Amino acid sequence: LNTVAIFGVGLIGGSFALALRHAGFQGSIIGVSSASTIERALALRVIDSGADAESAASQADLIYLAQPISEILNCLTQLNPWVRSDALVTDAGSTKSTITEYASRHLRRCQFLGGHPLAGKETTGVSSAEPQLFQGRKYVVTPRNAEELNTPEVGSFLSWLDRIGAVRVVMDAAQHDRTVAYTSHLPQLAATALAVSLKSTDPNTNVFGPGLLDMTRLAMSPFSVWKDILQTNSREIRDALESYLTVLHHFKEVVATEDMQREFDNAADLARQLRGYKSFLDEK
Amino acid sequence: LNTVAIFGVGLIGGSFALALRHAGFQGSIIGVSSASTIERALALRVIDSGADAESAASQADLIYLAQPISEILNCLTQLNPWVRSDALVTDAGSTKSTITEYASRHLRRCQFLGGHPLAGKETTGVSSAEPQLFQGRKYVVTPRNAEELNTPEVGSFLSWLDRIGAVRVVMDAAQHDRTVAYTSHLPQLAATALAVSLKSTDPNTNVFGPGLLDMTRLAMSPFSVWKDILQTNSREIRDALESYLTVLHHFKEVVATEDMQREFDNAADLARQLRGYKSFLDEK
Repeated sequence: LNTVAIFGVGLIGGSFALALRHAGFQGSIIGVSSASTIERALALRVIDSGADAESAASQADLIYLAQPISEILNCLTQLNPWVRSDALVTDAGSTKSTITEYASRHLRRCQFLGGHPLAGKETTGVSSAEPQLFQGRKYVVTPRNAEELNTPEVGSFLSWLDRIGAVRVVMDAAQHDRTVAYTSHLPQLAATALAVSLKSTDPNTNVFGPGLLDMTRLAMSPFSVWKDILQTNSREIRDALESYLTVLHHFKEVVATEDMQREFDNAADLARQLRGYKSFLDEK
Repeated sequence: LNTVAIFGVGLIGGSFALALRHAGFQGSIIGVSSASTIERALALRVIDSGADAESAASQADLIYLAQPISEILNCLTQLNPWVRSDALVTDAGSTKSTITEYASRHLRRCQFLGGHPLAGKETTGVSSAEPQLFQGRKYVVTPRNAEELNTPEVGSFLSWLDRIGAVRVVMDAAQHDRTVAYTSHLPQLAATALAVSLKSTDPNTNVFGPGLLDMTRLAMSPFSVWKDILQTNSREIRDALESYLTVLHHFKEVVATEDMQREFDNAADLARQLRGYKSFLDEK
């Protein structure tokens, strides 16, 4: 790996650049972003140089797409004439099926591997980037078939994921999108819907405990982040919402009965199971 | 106020006893609980003595019912022949309409004032009791009419609430139960239902972020705490669930459209508004 082009030098793209450098990467890191972001990224020594998309794509062994999903999709329709045939294009988008379809359709001259790092923080932008962002965090890669993982280009990329401390998870794109519909997109919509429902009462009564703050923290997420996710995973999200609606309808029927015992027990089991995984992650 | 009887010397009852003492109460505090709890409460100097319900009720100026709601209801059917006519009975149950109805029906010889301290912690039992538990926390009282607040007995109780640092909120029982159906009971059921829905996916995929942990923390709440709440506020909870279901149905229809912008904006407004209240509380 000699030359990496980061498209979208924000929190994720900038952190990937810093993580590579921190892990010993000696090659060149080119940024493709707005002029102001490139200026800041250069000042912070996150990238070595800025370039336009065509120039960066034509030089890079690894093209790392870290923009919002809609920009990744747009970029995938343009890259093909520019890329080297021995390059690898990968991305960090939060949904994978649509992105993978776009890559299959438009990017024919080099390999593509979809990715989704489960890393983030409260703040965004290149100023928030840090080399440890991926340390101990899951990093999903979504090959279209098992052989895609066996090329030298992907082998090199995966070894760098290991070196930056990411915990690799291999899934197909459909399985990824179905999983995050339940584990990420449904919780977001559950929080948003709860906050919207609360608007129908008078919140001036101001009688609530800390549980409500937990349950509405995600409701502060900006729509700018979620718009593309909702649009590119709407089928799976509708399924997850349907499952949630079915459970809530059942609760409405049995809320005052002993049947709720089993629901609470099942819910507590699942919640504790998630925390088992989490502490496993924390220990790594 | 000379003699206080605490029925149910757990986290809330025990903390009320400690808070009174900490605030300068010089009288006697009698505990009514299981033999083992009384033993522990005496060892921890939370109460001055233990007694059976009849003996404690016949001595007390203030009878503080801090048991689970179903035990409070049972107690209200028994207290009337035992209480002094100048006593005040109050409670700390999380729902208020059913308790207030029981008091109106069964407790005729002395005054009753419903209460709900919005205080708590992760652990329960008298060993977790602490004198600062009510400090800066809302304490809802639910008189049946405004005059009930003007008696000497209630005046004395309210002045002690002030002295233990609680922030008094006056609401009627129906308004209280409707409010907490949205601010407490709905968030609980939203978390429980989310965890139940997640059981339908394979959680072994283990791909999730910190948002899911926020949204499933309440799902670990024990049913033993919630059973009585769900049974004594089922009508308001069904209404809140219906409101939530309506919003979620709408989300399912418009999830991939620009209509979601307004939903996210409204939700973020409400979530920030709640946090404004919270930081106001924290500053107190």
